Amino acid sequence: MKAIILFGHGARDPRWREPFDRLATLWRDQHARTLVEVAFLEIMKPSLCDAVTSLTIQGVTQITVVPIFFGQGSHLRNDFPKLLEACREKFPKIILSATHAVGEDLAVLQAIIDFSAKVP
Amino acid sequence: MKAIILFGHGARDPRWREPFDRLATLWRDQHARTLVEVAFLEIMKPSLCDAVTSLTIQGVTQITVVPIFFGQGSHLRNDFPKLLEACREKFPKIILSATHAVGEDLAVLQAIIDFSAKVP
Repeated sequence: MKAIILFGHGARDPRWREPFDRLATLWRDQHARTLVEVAFLEIMKPSLCDAVTSLTIQGVTQITVVPIFFGQGSHLRNDFPKLLEACREKFPKIILSATHAVGEDLAVLQAIIDFSAKVP
Repeated sequence: MKAIILFGHGARDPRWREPFDRLATLWRDQHARTLVEVAFLEIMKPSLCDAVTSLTIQGVTQITVVPIFFGQGSHLRNDFPKLLEACREKFPKIILSATHAVGEDLAVLQAIIDFSAKVP
């Protein structure tokens, strides 16, 4: 069974995670056969490895992590690969991969342009 | 003359800003009549007020700031309104408004879902 993890930065204000929960709901509505979890780099729970643990308990064997970040800075270039490697060591039988940050995707950027163009 | 400012968090790694520069290029290609600048909350330049200054010099009288953030946490709920107010005090003749964070927009979230669904 496959799953994706929507991976964000995390913040102190609990309302910060609302778009992430909305993304997970959209995913479940549209892609019910592939499980989804959210996970956060810092401050918020669950951590990436906690989300992987939760998915493996549900029988998932293949997980793709989607970084919900605009830019690819130190968090994604340095912290994230280390976290991913730590999860791989903990779950050697799970196929764990990652996409680019969503901010690298032209269609995501175009949706932001279209949103900005709706400005009065 | 109108303008928009694409307002992001900022980061130490200069490559972090690439999606912001790409957004500005897309905007210029598609909406040439409305000027665009990027601006950052911290670490990166220009600041919000510096971007407003640059636009006023070019004759802009109406500016909308688009926060390129997913979640609305302390940065957008506390820091950003104060920054916006400081810019308004500095430029009382400029009409300065702001949209919600782009992560609040359903079409942006859907584009992220579609990107995630392209995962092999």
